[in-house]
Amino acid sequence: MSDHNQDWFEEKHDDIGLRFRLKNRLFSEQSEFQKVEVVETTGHGVLLAHDGMIMVTEKDEFIYHDMITHVPMFTHPNPKKVLVIGGGDGGTVREVLKHEGVQEVTMVEIDGMVVEASKKFLPQTSSMLSDPKVKLHIQDGVAFMKQSTDKFDVIIVDSSEPIGPATPLFNVDFYRDINERLVDDGIVVSQGESPYYDMKMQKVLVKILAEVFPKVHIYNYCNMSYPSGLWSFTFASKGLCPLRDFSEARVQQKFQYYSPEIHRGSFMLPQFMMDEHGDSLTPLPKMSWV
Amino acid sequence: MSDHNQDWFEEKHDDIGLRFRLKNRLFSEQSEFQKVEVVETTGHGVLLAHDGMIMVTEKDEFIYHDMITHVPMFTHPNPKKVLVIGGGDGGTVREVLKHEGVQEVTMVEIDGMVVEASKKFLPQTSSMLSDPKVKLHIQDGVAFMKQSTDKFDVIIVDSSEPIGPATPLFNVDFYRDINERLVDDGIVVSQGESPYYDMKMQKVLVKILAEVFPKVHIYNYCNMSYPSGLWSFTFASKGLCPLRDFSEARVQQKFQYYSPEIHRGSFMLPQFMMDEHGDSLTPLPKMSWV
Repeated sequence: MSDHNQDWFEEKHDDIGLRFRLKNRLFSEQSEFQKVEVVETTGHGVLLAHDGMIMVTEKDEFIYHDMITHVPMFTHPNPKKVLVIGGGDGGTVREVLKHEGVQEVTMVEIDGMVVEASKKFLPQTSSMLSDPKVKLHIQDGVAFMKQSTDKFDVIIVDSSEPIGPATPLFNVDFYRDINERLVDDGIVVSQGESPYYDMKMQKVLVKILAEVFPKVHIYNYCNMSYPSGLWSFTFASKGLCPLRDFSEARVQQKFQYYSPEIHRGSFMLPQFMMDEHGDSLTPLPKMSWV
Repeated sequence: MSDHNQDWFEEKHDDIGLRFRLKNRLFSEQSEFQKVEVVETTGHGVLLAHDGMIMVTEKDEFIYHDMITHVPMFTHPNPKKVLVIGGGDGGTVREVLKHEGVQEVTMVEIDGMVVEASKKFLPQTSSMLSDPKVKLHIQDGVAFMKQSTDKFDVIIVDSSEPIGPATPLFNVDFYRDINERLVDDGIVVSQGESPYYDMKMQKVLVKILAEVFPKVHIYNYCNMSYPSGLWSFTFASKGLCPLRDFSEARVQQKFQYYSPEIHRGSFMLPQFMMDEHGDSLTPLPKMSWV
């Protein structure tokens, strides 16, 4: 879908295009799974794309990685073992490792070329992949979940869109396996698509989660390098509530995007999302002010 | 700044471009103030632009207009007289008139061509401009504020970027005049720019507001037809707090984007915005759960 004219890197869809002015093309190869591209842009630094879909840019990846990681990691009282499915650029693992209680992060990325390209061209996101606490598997996430006998406190599904290699991740069997691998107060957070352009797919994911987990929520954030910006993560748990069970006192570090305020605020959804998802979402506790 | 190739309407900046596939070009004229363009796009319906900057599209204007209007209108206990500066497409006036207690909406738009083009091509936003409660002035908003002797409960500055005709609206004298024209529990909400691309300008606006008003807040929303999506409104008042003084019981209608939840959640800011604005913003009350 990318537009290979000389001046721009574009994520182009039928109706809309979002493009970044090019400085350099750094890498472009077809892996076993997808076309992996890395370019340097004038405004957003290094940009990574799969099959023409923008995954991250250097300048705004902090938003995506803060929100996919710190919301579950600060909701859980003491996450020690964390699993990341996907997340080949390494940004999620980097953020997980900012939580001092973490003893082990397992990362399962299907496409080794994404990891290699990120190590070479995106040191900002990939720098912690060689940390001794990280166990990196270049493997299909679905197969890994079937084989694994480990238990995890937090599982993060840091996947691309459900076209190409991420398709089997949007499946109820995959989430049943995740449920098996989560401890009793475990949480799973997943990349949740655009509530405007991909509502159909977001509903599929939410319904799958509601079949498997007693608590299902959505939280929104703004992804500046995805078309429209309006984007979601799903949050599912065996019992923990991202509002009631979140304690601000746990947040002793400062992040660029994540804050206790945005943690809470991001679960407050626009009306059309509540209407679309209806009973599939667990009602939030009512807010008051002190 | 627009890219006049055949297939796309693009808002193009030095580093990024957001474009919508064209179906038809409907209107393009130079007014006394700016180039006014209306096109039909395949994905977002009719699109209005000033000097190549996208103002609204038919498909997602509900987000902008819900958020600029209902947040102040439901914070104020009983808004009867409302002033809209700018807002030539009419969407804000349409939303104001959904509040039954409103007796009069004054709209002051500098560029009559924007109103005429919207009446012709954007009936969805402009339909209420001929309502008997609406007093429409085609006039400079700054001059209007100097002359007016009326008092308003809510003032909405629905302006474009501070380049072109909206420049004088980013000025402390303008907000001193607004302060004079607001009742004692009055609220002024303004289009607040992008906290990422236009932080410099957003800081100017927030500092101006903090000079004039005792309470200054920012709330965010996602504008799907502005580059990056991450966008802000400012909220300033003589005393009312958008969280403590907001009552969910007032919201008896259903909107497409606005909800009591998103009203509250939108004031929860990412860390970098709190750091940039520092003491200029009034601290929010602390949340708890019931």
